[in-house]
Amino acid sequence: MSEPRFLARYEIRVGPGEDPVAKVEALCLEQTAELPSETLPDPIAAEWIGRCTSLEPLGDGLWLAGVSFPEAVAGGELTQLLNLLFGNSSLQSGIRLVGVDWPAGLLACLGGPALGIAGLRTRLRVHDGPLLATALKPVGLDAASLAQRCEAFARGGLDLIKDDHGLADQRTAPFAERLARCQAAVTRANAATGGQARYCPNVTAGPAELDRRAEAARAAGCDTVLLNAWIAGLAAVAHLRDAHGLAVLAHPALTGGLLRPDHGIDTPVLLGELFRIAGADAVIYPNAGGRFAFSEARCLAIAERLRAPLGGLRGAWPMPGGGMSMDAAPQWAARYGADTIFLIGGDLYRAGDLTTAAQRFRAALEERHE
Amino acid sequence: MSEPRFLARYEIRVGPGEDPVAKVEALCLEQTAELPSETLPDPIAAEWIGRCTSLEPLGDGLWLAGVSFPEAVAGGELTQLLNLLFGNSSLQSGIRLVGVDWPAGLLACLGGPALGIAGLRTRLRVHDGPLLATALKPVGLDAASLAQRCEAFARGGLDLIKDDHGLADQRTAPFAERLARCQAAVTRANAATGGQARYCPNVTAGPAELDRRAEAARAAGCDTVLLNAWIAGLAAVAHLRDAHGLAVLAHPALTGGLLRPDHGIDTPVLLGELFRIAGADAVIYPNAGGRFAFSEARCLAIAERLRAPLGGLRGAWPMPGGGMSMDAAPQWAARYGADTIFLIGGDLYRAGDLTTAAQRFRAALEERHE
Repeated sequence: MSEPRFLARYEIRVGPGEDPVAKVEALCLEQTAELPSETLPDPIAAEWIGRCTSLEPLGDGLWLAGVSFPEAVAGGELTQLLNLLFGNSSLQSGIRLVGVDWPAGLLACLGGPALGIAGLRTRLRVHDGPLLATALKPVGLDAASLAQRCEAFARGGLDLIKDDHGLADQRTAPFAERLARCQAAVTRANAATGGQARYCPNVTAGPAELDRRAEAARAAGCDTVLLNAWIAGLAAVAHLRDAHGLAVLAHPALTGGLLRPDHGIDTPVLLGELFRIAGADAVIYPNAGGRFAFSEARCLAIAERLRAPLGGLRGAWPMPGGGMSMDAAPQWAARYGADTIFLIGGDLYRAGDLTTAAQRFRAALEERHE
Repeated sequence: MSEPRFLARYEIRVGPGEDPVAKVEALCLEQTAELPSETLPDPIAAEWIGRCTSLEPLGDGLWLAGVSFPEAVAGGELTQLLNLLFGNSSLQSGIRLVGVDWPAGLLACLGGPALGIAGLRTRLRVHDGPLLATALKPVGLDAASLAQRCEAFARGGLDLIKDDHGLADQRTAPFAERLARCQAAVTRANAATGGQARYCPNVTAGPAELDRRAEAARAAGCDTVLLNAWIAGLAAVAHLRDAHGLAVLAHPALTGGLLRPDHGIDTPVLLGELFRIAGADAVIYPNAGGRFAFSEARCLAIAERLRAPLGGLRGAWPMPGGGMSMDAAPQWAARYGADTIFLIGGDLYRAGDLTTAAQRFRAALEERHE
C-alpha cells in the first residue's frame, strides 16, 4: 500500500551547466531522508522521500518542479510541515516554494481560523462592509496616553484597535498596565457608543510569557490579540486559539527574508495560506502604494488565498496596512471587496483629533459601500 | 537624561536616484515609532526612535549605516529585540543587518547558554579536543531501528547522537516511543563503554507540545535536546533552558531566507550571535564543502562569533554539518580548533557498520589532535 502524498511546486533556478533534474532530486532527499540515496533502507527509499513528479522549463534557467511528499512526513504538525516544505532548502539558493496542493487531512488536523470572516463579523456585529482598524503608537508613549488614543479611536467608530507590533513590555507602557488601561478605555467608549470595538493587545513573547500575556488578556476581557507570528513561531497562533480561545491578528514582521523573488516562499503561499492554516483570523500585510514595495497583484493574491475555499477551513481576513491613506481607502475597498480589514495608522495620527479622524475614515468607506 | 542606546549597523542598497539618507531615516522610524516624524509627540521624537549616527559609501550604491536604538525599546525580550532589529525592514529590500554592539544589560537579561563550551565538556567528561556528533535518520524508519542505530553510534564513541531535525512525531517513530527506545539504547551503550554519550531528541513543536516533549525528555533522563529554533520561535531556546533545564542544540532550518547577500541578516550575526544570545549551547550550520554553499570564511566567522567574548555570556559550540566527510574532518578540525562539535551523518551511514564508522570518525579526529 502506498503512502498518501501531496504535491508542492517549486521554482528552481540553475546556473549554466547545472542540471535541474539533479537539483530537484537533491531537494527531494534534503527535505525528507536527508541522506544519500544509496544509504537508504529499501522501503524508505520507495515510500518516504520526496519524488519529482514534473519538471518544466520556464526559461532563463528557471524551472517549475512538482514534488510529492508523503503526508505522513508532515506528521500533522505545523512546525514539521514548515520544515518539510522549506527547512533545509532555505539554506540553499535558487529555490522558491510557489504552490502546495494542501491535503484535506492535514488541513483538518491544523484547523485554521476559529472565527475567520463570518465569526468575527458575528462577534463585532458588523454584518457587511469592511472592518476598520488602527494601531496604538508610538513606542515610548506612556500607557495612559496610549489608552486615551484607544478611547478616541473607539469613540470614532473603529472596530479593531491593536497595539503597534513593537509595543511589548517596555517600561514606558508595561504590558499589564497598558492592557488594563486600554481595555478600560475601549469598554468606556463602547458603553458610550453602543459599539463593539475591540482593543487587541500584542501578546508576542517567548513561550512562558506568551501564556501569561494571553491569560491576562482573557482575564481583562479581551478576545482578540495581536501576534508577531513569525517571530513567536507560527505554531503560536494555534496555541492562542486552542489553549486560550483568542482570535488572532497575525503580523508578518521578519517574514520578509523569505518573500524574495529569487529564493524563498511565494508571498500568497506564506501569508495567504500558511498563516491561515496556522489559525490566523486576520493576516496583516503591507499594502501596495504604502511604505513597502509589495505590488497590487501580490496584495490581491494574498487576500484571494485568505478567502478562497481551502478544505473545510474558515476564510481569514486580509488586513492590508503599512502606509495607507484615508483618501485611498475607498479605492482599495473597491478592489479588495467587503471582507477586508483596513488598517490605517499614520494617516489617522496625521489628522490630529483622533475621534474625528476615525469618523472620517469610516465615512470614507461607508460612502463607497452604499 | 538621555536613554542608553546601542548601535546596529546596516548595509543599505539604493538604486539610481534613491537617497541613502532618506532610506536610513525611514528605517529609523520604521523599526521604532512606525509613524511619520511630524506626528510624534516631542519627547518621543527625541528619545525613542532610531538615529542615524554614520553613513559611509561602500561603492556601487551600497552604504554602511550606523543606527542607534534606545535599549529600552528592546524591552529586555528576545522577541522584541528581533522585531526592533529587522521586523518590518525585512519586508522592504536592500537592507542587511551586519553588526550590533550588544549592550551589556540586554545580554545579561537574555542570558545566553546555560552550559556552553565549558559546561558541556564537564557534563560529557571530554576535557579537550572536539566533540563528535551524528543524526539519527531517516524519517520513515521505525523507532526500534533508530534506537539500534543510536546504540551502534554510542558504542562507537560518538558524544552526541541527535534526532534528525525532520523526526517529529510521525507515526513511523512516534516521539514517545523513539525517546524511550533511543534513551534506553544510549544508556545500554554507556554502561558497556563507560562513556557519556547523549541521545538528543528533537523536541520542536508548537508551544504546548514543546513543553510536553521537553518534560518527557527530562523524565526519560535526557539533558540535551535538538530544536529547530527558527521554526519554533527563537525564544523557545531560552524557554527550554529556563523552564526545563535542558541544553539545546539549535538547528537553523528555515533561517536561510534571511541569510541572503542582498537583504537580510549577516550569517554570523544571526547564527553566531543571536542564536547564542538566545541560549543555544551549540549551533548547527552547514559547513563549507558539503551540500550547501556557505563559504569557508562565513563558516569560520560563525564559529568565531559563537566563541568570542560577549558580555558575560558563555561561549557556544559551533556544530558544522551538512555533508562533511570523515576524510575531511581532520582538516576541518585544524581550521576550527578544539571547541567544535563535528556533525557527520551521511558519510557514517555510507560506511555500513555504524559502530566501526563511529570509531573511524573518532580515530580520524584523535590522530590529528595528538
